[in-house]
Amino acid sequence: MANGFTPVSNGVPDEESITAPLLHLRRSTSNNTSQIAIVGSNPCPIESLDYEIMENDVFKQDWRSRTIENIAGIKFVVTSNRMLENKYAEAYLIFAAANLGLTLFAVTITAFIAPEAAGSGIPEVKAYLNGVDAPAIFSFRTLLVKIVGSIAAVSSSLNVGKAGPMVHTGACIAALTSAGIAAAFRAPVGGVLFALEEMASWWRSALLWRAFFATAIVAILLRGLTDLCLSGKCGLFGTGGLIIYDVTSVNISYHLRDVPPVLLLGVIGGIAGSLYNFLLGKVLRLYNLINEKGTIYKILLACIVSIVTSSLLFGLPWIAPCHPCPPGATEPCPTIGRSGNYKKFQCPPGHYNELASLFFNTNDDAIKNLFSKDTDTEFHPLSILIFFITCFFLSIFSYGIVAPIGLFIPVIVTGASYGRLVGLLIGSTSNLNHGLFAVLGAASLLGGTMRMTVSLCVILLELTNNLLLLPLIMLVLLISKTVADAFNGNVYDQIMSFKGFPYLETHAEPYMRQLTVSDVVAGPLRVFNGIELVGNIVHVLRTTGHNGFPVVDEPPYSDAPVLYGLILRSHVITLLKKKCFLESPRLDVDAVERFSASDFAKQGLGNQDKIEEIELSEEEMEMYVDLHPFTNASPYTVVETMSLAKALTLFRGVGLRHLLVVPKTSERLPVVGILTRHDFMPQHILGLHPMLERTWKVDLGERSLKIKKIEARNVCGSEVYPSLAAFEGGGVRGWGS
Amino acid sequence: MANGFTPVSNGVPDEESITAPLLHLRRSTSNNTSQIAIVGSNPCPIESLDYEIMENDVFKQDWRSRTIENIAGIKFVVTSNRMLENKYAEAYLIFAAANLGLTLFAVTITAFIAPEAAGSGIPEVKAYLNGVDAPAIFSFRTLLVKIVGSIAAVSSSLNVGKAGPMVHTGACIAALTSAGIAAAFRAPVGGVLFALEEMASWWRSALLWRAFFATAIVAILLRGLTDLCLSGKCGLFGTGGLIIYDVTSVNISYHLRDVPPVLLLGVIGGIAGSLYNFLLGKVLRLYNLINEKGTIYKILLACIVSIVTSSLLFGLPWIAPCHPCPPGATEPCPTIGRSGNYKKFQCPPGHYNELASLFFNTNDDAIKNLFSKDTDTEFHPLSILIFFITCFFLSIFSYGIVAPIGLFIPVIVTGASYGRLVGLLIGSTSNLNHGLFAVLGAASLLGGTMRMTVSLCVILLELTNNLLLLPLIMLVLLISKTVADAFNGNVYDQIMSFKGFPYLETHAEPYMRQLTVSDVVAGPLRVFNGIELVGNIVHVLRTTGHNGFPVVDEPPYSDAPVLYGLILRSHVITLLKKKCFLESPRLDVDAVERFSASDFAKQGLGNQDKIEEIELSEEEMEMYVDLHPFTNASPYTVVETMSLAKALTLFRGVGLRHLLVVPKTSERLPVVGILTRHDFMPQHILGLHPMLERTWKVDLGERSLKIKKIEARNVCGSEVYPSLAAFEGGGVRGWGS
Repeated sequence: MANGFTPVSNGVPDEESITAPLLHLRRSTSNNTSQIAIVGSNPCPIESLDYEIMENDVFKQDWRSRTIENIAGIKFVVTSNRMLENKYAEAYLIFAAANLGLTLFAVTITAFIAPEAAGSGIPEVKAYLNGVDAPAIFSFRTLLVKIVGSIAAVSSSLNVGKAGPMVHTGACIAALTSAGIAAAFRAPVGGVLFALEEMASWWRSALLWRAFFATAIVAILLRGLTDLCLSGKCGLFGTGGLIIYDVTSVNISYHLRDVPPVLLLGVIGGIAGSLYNFLLGKVLRLYNLINEKGTIYKILLACIVSIVTSSLLFGLPWIAPCHPCPPGATEPCPTIGRSGNYKKFQCPPGHYNELASLFFNTNDDAIKNLFSKDTDTEFHPLSILIFFITCFFLSIFSYGIVAPIGLFIPVIVTGASYGRLVGLLIGSTSNLNHGLFAVLGAASLLGGTMRMTVSLCVILLELTNNLLLLPLIMLVLLISKTVADAFNGNVYDQIMSFKGFPYLETHAEPYMRQLTVSDVVAGPLRVFNGIELVGNIVHVLRTTGHNGFPVVDEPPYSDAPVLYGLILRSHVITLLKKKCFLESPRLDVDAVERFSASDFAKQGLGNQDKIEEIELSEEEMEMYVDLHPFTNASPYTVVETMSLAKALTLFRGVGLRHLLVVPKTSERLPVVGILTRHDFMPQHILGLHPMLERTWKVDLGERSLKIKKIEARNVCGSEVYPSLAAFEGGGVRGWGS
Repeated sequence: MANGFTPVSNGVPDEESITAPLLHLRRSTSNNTSQIAIVGSNPCPIESLDYEIMENDVFKQDWRSRTIENIAGIKFVVTSNRMLENKYAEAYLIFAAANLGLTLFAVTITAFIAPEAAGSGIPEVKAYLNGVDAPAIFSFRTLLVKIVGSIAAVSSSLNVGKAGPMVHTGACIAALTSAGIAAAFRAPVGGVLFALEEMASWWRSALLWRAFFATAIVAILLRGLTDLCLSGKCGLFGTGGLIIYDVTSVNISYHLRDVPPVLLLGVIGGIAGSLYNFLLGKVLRLYNLINEKGTIYKILLACIVSIVTSSLLFGLPWIAPCHPCPPGATEPCPTIGRSGNYKKFQCPPGHYNELASLFFNTNDDAIKNLFSKDTDTEFHPLSILIFFITCFFLSIFSYGIVAPIGLFIPVIVTGASYGRLVGLLIGSTSNLNHGLFAVLGAASLLGGTMRMTVSLCVILLELTNNLLLLPLIMLVLLISKTVADAFNGNVYDQIMSFKGFPYLETHAEPYMRQLTVSDVVAGPLRVFNGIELVGNIVHVLRTTGHNGFPVVDEPPYSDAPVLYGLILRSHVITLLKKKCFLESPRLDVDAVERFSASDFAKQGLGNQDKIEEIELSEEEMEMYVDLHPFTNASPYTVVETMSLAKALTLFRGVGLRHLLVVPKTSERLPVVGILTRHDFMPQHILGLHPMLERTWKVDLGERSLKIKKIEARNVCGSEVYPSLAAFEGGGVRGWGS
């Protein structure tokens, strides 16, 4: 049904097929379930395959990383040169000014051109794949701002990441969501798994292999390009090859006694990760209040964050003492400007400042320094501790500003720092060198915040090229995820719910078992006759925002009122636009011939025809349309007494947008309502049934007990409310929210 | 609803929930849709998590590999010693006899004790996860035979693998299906992905993380145990650590000019792979005819295969010349008996027989030899060619014998051989050494037969510990899969359809769009009244094998006949067994109190109560039962005019076992039929509508054209048959089957 024209008796129309149906969130505050409209883009971008695009993507992603390195690099070089001349104040000013400028640029373009581009974009993409299309998240200006803005933001030494924006970019240009991660980290397989584990709402085995196909092309191209550029002919391309943070140590070996410290790392990661998510939530709420005040506040906030960041990055190294360079260090010592270990900063020649090596650096270099294996003596525990605390809070306070920034890299840095710290404290009792501890630390914090397992595991493998670490990484991820799950949810889901996307969960809430679908169908039901008066149609379309309408045949066209099917708003509008009307009410069998498939093809986001735009004369208003040929005659239906939980299973499992509710007995109208995504949202349901609110808050043990009691009580098909009453009477304790 | 007791108005009964519903295939040849019965085991073993089991599993898997090595080793040692004494005939006899004995043992126990244990078991597990439960595939004797038999079979020098049986073993002991692969190859992440990509029919994100959890435990335990055993205290455990075929070469580098040979490998792999699947199918059919003749034929067949194999393995090396050992070879040369490169075989001291190094070895060692990187000069192209051809056909002709044997390893060996061959032929024009070509060859043939992408990629990475190969492996897998898909399907699917499992595909066949559900509902519909006479119930249960019955309320209990719900055979039988009858027809509100949840818990496979076993007196037959409390009042329903394709989407998407068909208009009985898995099987549908047979065989271009025409013709809701007639009239060409 690729052509979008969905004939009647056979086949699954696009928006009713397995692929995620789309729901367009209007900016209006109303919760009215009728506030939905078809969007035009392919509901499941992960499906699309386009070499050209992939190619551009690769170029862009890698080109982007390089640009960041260069911008940040120049900044560091200039600053460091000033410091060589002992012009520290000037150095700070240049450093802070550069950062402020870049931040300002990023925030300004975001705030003025594309506010949708703010943040990592992963929640948006995830919601999109679930069927929720936030306005303009895939528009061209978003894409543009996303690319330019993230470059500026990341170069401005803010503790923010570029992975998320890359994922969004990938999705934006209709490439696979995995393309971003694949190129961001040069972790192709990890990219695929990331897309599937974190993003995809509907699993198809085809998905896996297509995503793999696309990322394979990314990987091969990337490999080929970096290969071409080994000669350095093309400056912006890197020489790193596929593995960014290579920690391969030939004779790595660890024994069971290395497991306890790893377990410890897992627990720390779990606690730190859930704390991170918790604080991030709070900060986002706070920032939201500020940002809502207006653009100027957005910019002010960003400026403050930038200045504080610059000051910390520039100021903190001063508290660290200067160490003499270790004799026979594998790397140059001290290094000046740009990347590298053993930063000279303010130290005398032959000495290095350990904190500067971490702070006065791009995040990528900081990670490299922490992961590097031959530098066990470089850092003092205290410095690492300072670095950890600073990173932890900086990343939390940086994410909320209105710029295209991600979380991935900051989390890795933070995790790596305490990983290294644990390594330092354990010292020689373990076979693992501190670099490996840093890797495990990064894994643990990623597990604690993102709560992914397989994809993170593979990404880390692809990053570090150290397969022997696999069991330990798995162990750490397991523990941190398990611990963190005890406290709160995955960070992207948190942001998603914070943004108010109606994300449709797979599992039904327990209280949904206590409700029937008829308990939640809300709003007035608008029905069309099989052969309808144009005037009525126009009136209905103008007065409601519904996107699907049941079509009912009534005598004389049937002996009793019978549900014929479901027709989509967009198709009705097309009919009105084409003005293929009938003078008298009659079947219009060959109406289809007057349309081409393209007439019913989905239209791009924002390009849908509006009913307001259609001009109709008085005479036309008096004419008729035969809707039968354009109605989907096989809509999915549930009986009004169906339990809400099972209706959700159907709605979510099949990926529906409209679910018709039909009466149990046949006296009345053959359809009693339409269920849409909003009708399954807890807010909506609890709004309709406040009594559930408390019930829902019963702690699990007690609730399951009660539910069992109720099940025993109303097994004989009694209504549902008595059982709710039973809940009420149960004298249940609240969670205290 | 873990307790299996499924109350009426709320909640999803087990066998109707998302997890794969189970369908028990009777051995009877009848295709009657009523030939189904509930089985007791957890429909989705991938769900279960059991540390204890995992642990045993690890022990067993690793222990198994070791045992095989030892048995085979002893055999080779003894044989080689004879050869040292130039007693070649004796050596051959011992070799052949040992192989024959082991094969006989494997086949005999399989044929007599557990025929279900024959083959790799992966198709069975895959079908099981799709909802099809072949008889006794998870019984204890199957498990036993699977373990012992696969050890014997693999040790008997047959060109068969142990991975498949391990997967089955893993499933057997209710461990995760991934556990097998994870331990078989020590590729934990690959194991998880294998389970998901190849096995799982219903994707839940929880699945990924649970599978990961379990395999992580496998990995960590395995790592710990091999660690403990480095000292060699526990003989049966290996010292290999996690990576079996380590091909890490420190300074691996390849350039764009290495890509063409890799592309070539991919194409070869695709063609060879599809040819492999094709031939395997033919051979299986042939063998099936022989095996059906009786146990003695099964054994004879196996003996012939074993003797031929032995003769080839022992005979072919003689045609290879003896080469002098290369000076300064990294490995001992020549080696005698057991594993190792540079086999002496019949050669004079200081010389080695290249073919013997491949043939006269366990498969694992052959792979090691082919993958090893410093032996570019060891093999002559001709020998490799001979080895390739022999492996290719031996593995095809070995798989069909009645023993627990797999395909994974033989495919790797075969692929590695031609990979190495390509490497040899290309020679020094490529940077890649022959070992890496062998790895890529293995990848290509795996991709061509199994058609998996991500999981194979990760498994190979974990096997070879060479991340730098990643882009090339991805490339090879893509090409081989794409090429092979052009010819036929994945090998496991082929075997599955050959075994006749009613596997439910996700996608609907095009002709299903031309049918409504009412076109396929077959068989007499048996309906119970809400309050039913015991006699009637017993009669219905005795005369049909149906597993679910619609419950209809009729006056006086409702003003019109109305569908109340669906009741399961097993629950009805429980009611009869408990004999909670009523003298007079009335509602029995507190019937539930007389039952405990456990009464309705699912019973183990084979333990279900049979209606025949229930003794009922004449009086009891005259009494009544109120079915309401035990009926699922929220069954999923479709209208009879629903297109079959969309009904399948619902059935498959939600994972149903019964789907009630309700009438469009309400004159007649409120239910017109029940759809079960069988009603969606092409055989069944094409049996009912032979005219479709030809239609279906129209080549795609023409069909899509026709379908469009028909869509245009019956958009106005005309019946379906005219459109089929239109097909008929279309004068369509057959495919020639």
